[in-house]
Amino acid sequence: MPTLRLALAQMNATVGDLEGNAATISRLRTQAAALGADLVATPELSLLGYPPEDLLLKEGFIAAAQRKVAGLERSSAVPPILVGTVAEGLELAPSGDSRDDADPFDRRQERPRIANAVAALDASGVVAIATKRLLPNYDVFDERRYFMPGVGPHTIVNLQGVSIGILICEDVWLSNGPAAALVSEGATLLVVSNASPYAMGRRAEREAMLAQRARELNVPIAYVNMVGGQDELVFDGQSFVVDATGEVIARAAAFREELLVVDIEAQAGSVGVEMHATKSHNRDELLMPRIAEPLQEVGEVYEALVTGTRDYLRKNGFRSAVIALSGGIDSSLVAAIAVDAVGAAAVKGFALPSRYSSDHSLRDAEDLAERLDIEIRTIPIDPAHVALEGMLGGALDHEVRGLTEENLQSRIRGVLMMGISNDSGAIVLTTGNKSEMAVGYTTLYGDSAGGFAVIKDVPKTLVYQLCNYRNDLALELGDLAPIPQTVLTKAPSAELRPGQRDDQSLPPYGELDPLLELYVEQDVTADQLIERGYDRALVERITRLVDFAEYKRRQMPPGVRITAKAFGRDRRMPITNAFRTGAK
Amino acid sequence: MPTLRLALAQMNATVGDLEGNAATISRLRTQAAALGADLVATPELSLLGYPPEDLLLKEGFIAAAQRKVAGLERSSAVPPILVGTVAEGLELAPSGDSRDDADPFDRRQERPRIANAVAALDASGVVAIATKRLLPNYDVFDERRYFMPGVGPHTIVNLQGVSIGILICEDVWLSNGPAAALVSEGATLLVVSNASPYAMGRRAEREAMLAQRARELNVPIAYVNMVGGQDELVFDGQSFVVDATGEVIARAAAFREELLVVDIEAQAGSVGVEMHATKSHNRDELLMPRIAEPLQEVGEVYEALVTGTRDYLRKNGFRSAVIALSGGIDSSLVAAIAVDAVGAAAVKGFALPSRYSSDHSLRDAEDLAERLDIEIRTIPIDPAHVALEGMLGGALDHEVRGLTEENLQSRIRGVLMMGISNDSGAIVLTTGNKSEMAVGYTTLYGDSAGGFAVIKDVPKTLVYQLCNYRNDLALELGDLAPIPQTVLTKAPSAELRPGQRDDQSLPPYGELDPLLELYVEQDVTADQLIERGYDRALVERITRLVDFAEYKRRQMPPGVRITAKAFGRDRRMPITNAFRTGAK
Repeated sequence: MPTLRLALAQMNATVGDLEGNAATISRLRTQAAALGADLVATPELSLLGYPPEDLLLKEGFIAAAQRKVAGLERSSAVPPILVGTVAEGLELAPSGDSRDDADPFDRRQERPRIANAVAALDASGVVAIATKRLLPNYDVFDERRYFMPGVGPHTIVNLQGVSIGILICEDVWLSNGPAAALVSEGATLLVVSNASPYAMGRRAEREAMLAQRARELNVPIAYVNMVGGQDELVFDGQSFVVDATGEVIARAAAFREELLVVDIEAQAGSVGVEMHATKSHNRDELLMPRIAEPLQEVGEVYEALVTGTRDYLRKNGFRSAVIALSGGIDSSLVAAIAVDAVGAAAVKGFALPSRYSSDHSLRDAEDLAERLDIEIRTIPIDPAHVALEGMLGGALDHEVRGLTEENLQSRIRGVLMMGISNDSGAIVLTTGNKSEMAVGYTTLYGDSAGGFAVIKDVPKTLVYQLCNYRNDLALELGDLAPIPQTVLTKAPSAELRPGQRDDQSLPPYGELDPLLELYVEQDVTADQLIERGYDRALVERITRLVDFAEYKRRQMPPGVRITAKAFGRDRRMPITNAFRTGAK
Repeated sequence: MPTLRLALAQMNATVGDLEGNAATISRLRTQAAALGADLVATPELSLLGYPPEDLLLKEGFIAAAQRKVAGLERSSAVPPILVGTVAEGLELAPSGDSRDDADPFDRRQERPRIANAVAALDASGVVAIATKRLLPNYDVFDERRYFMPGVGPHTIVNLQGVSIGILICEDVWLSNGPAAALVSEGATLLVVSNASPYAMGRRAEREAMLAQRARELNVPIAYVNMVGGQDELVFDGQSFVVDATGEVIARAAAFREELLVVDIEAQAGSVGVEMHATKSHNRDELLMPRIAEPLQEVGEVYEALVTGTRDYLRKNGFRSAVIALSGGIDSSLVAAIAVDAVGAAAVKGFALPSRYSSDHSLRDAEDLAERLDIEIRTIPIDPAHVALEGMLGGALDHEVRGLTEENLQSRIRGVLMMGISNDSGAIVLTTGNKSEMAVGYTTLYGDSAGGFAVIKDVPKTLVYQLCNYRNDLALELGDLAPIPQTVLTKAPSAELRPGQRDDQSLPPYGELDPLLELYVEQDVTADQLIERGYDRALVERITRLVDFAEYKRRQMPPGVRITAKAFGRDRRMPITNAFRTGAK
């Protein structure tokens, strides 16, 4: 059987950065040449970044991407390459679906005219283009907005006597779909380009699916994924190869750029567009395949949060971050993540005690800062509290109290943090978790004010697990645990009034989080929850809180998605929404 | 030729309010009965509201909608009705596209299982269901996310000897599409259910398209549209009927609920599912068709803003609104709109002068309030300014200055307005216009803090036109012009530092707005603008400002869409986006 040395370029593309992404592709291709690779595969839309969103509606952007593909190196000194890009000018539409350009009211004018594509290039230029057939339009995906589905013959290239079928992401998820068609047309190896965002459990799911597909079709399959953060999404990499029995024979790291080079034995294949191989190179022996050990789930989430935060800052030009440290568990976790993302020197904490803050909170914040080796400054907020109380009380003709006073304190902190950000150029990282986001226990323009909401998709119970994970990791390495034990054991409180504790107005998080998961992530309605035996009063109160907080969530900063359904583009609920329990 | 008396129920549905929408449908149906109508047509998704967004992913919501359809009145005392709803359990997929339920990795599980539908009901219940074939997935529309395209035979019902072909919105926009198919199958009248959101120029476009379609097919067509606001969208109604020559023979009002009853002459038709007519009613003579006079463009925009604001407040339970009045043109316009939307008694203004505010600003704000007959209170912000300057200066180890100080003032105002909102339950209406939103000349958590951004889609030049329109309208009615002349003539300034004027850092709005329209609404890239002859330095500066402000816009409150491309779900740009000029 012929052996193909395939290099999977698990790269960190930046959306819109055609120049930079092309440079990354070129760098990895040169590395692959040095390692004797026959072919380099890159992720879905590797040249454009994923997802480019409405950049794809700009003809000027599409034209620039096309020019960039045309400018990729054409030389037998480097291996042929599969590049993720867009294709236009193809006969993409089935004949019955052609546009009538003469009809000014034909709304099909609005339909996309490009395809999500992989271009196969060798020293002679582009020899073949594969187009994505199945376009995901659910969850965070809007591919029907941008792309025409690929139609027509599938794309196979032939290299070193192997017939390589090219697929793009969704295409491989369907049995009896494009993968099966490629094999029936003669492909003896499948290569899938992906931009598959991270969510808990996704790696295992991908590997089980690909193993099944390999066994069904009796071919090896290589899966190359994007890595790195893009706004709310983080790509975990974890590119891998299964042999024809479905066994994982190589796996790249999670959340790191890596060139995974694998010798793949495949049946000899005779079909496909012939690609010119690189000029002869030294390749004395087969490579030992690298199979990275997968992370445990909580560790994987932690790395996702670190990667998403690091890339949001780096790709948006922020060199440092500031965090309001309350001494509570959420801000402690965010500070630890920030330090792991950009280093302690680039992170600064601010303790902003009010008249209701406890001494232990300030001590805990200082203890955390010392353990993380970050600078901390304290700004008591009372002068502004007094001033604004007086101004507001005068305008309202009565004393400021209750929720208004609680929010006032939180917003003074927001103003201070944003002032520090304006002055220093540091980004404000906010500290709200998903449980709070869900029920709206966050002050709009207060604690939620900032540029990136690191743990907005992390339920409170997972916040505890992540803290323990990070502490255990430090202890294993012989370091000081970053998060003080007192932070982990005290009862959660916003300290916006004397003696306040979260459990006075909410059920314990161990009860709340599963209920929220059902309502928010699994779309179980309030009536259905009651039918399943949940307490009616509790369900009505919690679901009402979730619905009512939609207007707040719409104004939250972006944050890393780690669950199967995050707030944001993943869950598009109307603000104006009268659907309630008991809608018979 | 037979005559069908058709009642177009131009109704204001609320998303998710199955109970309330069903009640509205029932009320209009009873009115139609009294007017001797043969058939009542309602808008697209009239029972669910449009767009229900991810409510459609909840099986419990779909089931509740189905129960509601089943519970609609079955009686020959009221006319048969066409109700906008969802259909499930239909064989919607072409046979080659069936799901393999046994494959756990088959991502087609994610595909929608419902259709956007119109149910035709008479005294015997649902007699026919029409499904939407063409699903818009561009602009603000995500219908591929929710619906399967309808397939199979088209739906025709027969009533009073007329064969009525049923279409849903997008279906009618295609020549040689579903409309043509219906007529070739024997339909002699077409009825289209729509939820077509307002944008400038849309009415004329719809009427031209429908006239063309009617002439092509030689049949009369009735177009019933939704009316009212839903989050960022506002539906303008303006339902209408064209005869077979394309002439508009009836038109309902813009932005108001109306039952438009029209006698339509159609060719006798013999095909279609027979519907039971209502029991005999008095109908001595033909109706004089009502043809509402369309509004002029600026007036139409004004009404769109009033309607969108009124409905956002009403449908979300707000009884009153508060507005920070700077004495500038934007806040003056917003106050006038708010008063027209909910009445002067429900609107309260706050003047929040800083140390840099001019006396004339305060006088203009007071003059405006007097003209609008709204209460105004003044809260000088200096006490908080002094306190926060001191606190922030201490933390920064230097004086607060420049942008940091400007934003500080704006955020103190935001804190005060939100405190007033928390205390009173009134919604804060923000006052930023589209030109400012575009270039980011707005302070996050400052002037942009609030619940609804009334004019966020209105370019500054149109702000002036709207003010003049409103003043002229008042003068025509013999009323006092609401917006003081000095507000209209002074140079725009945020007054956040001494002597600041907008034109010191931006080109005149008359130059800026057309450039922004090309870049934001028409997706012309910076390079293309330069090629068209715009000054390179200006283009680079403005487009950079627009790109950089994406993170701010992501945190803006919703506001009324009036252009063909609003910021928000209409323009989905990545925040992390490295595409710039000169990307060759």
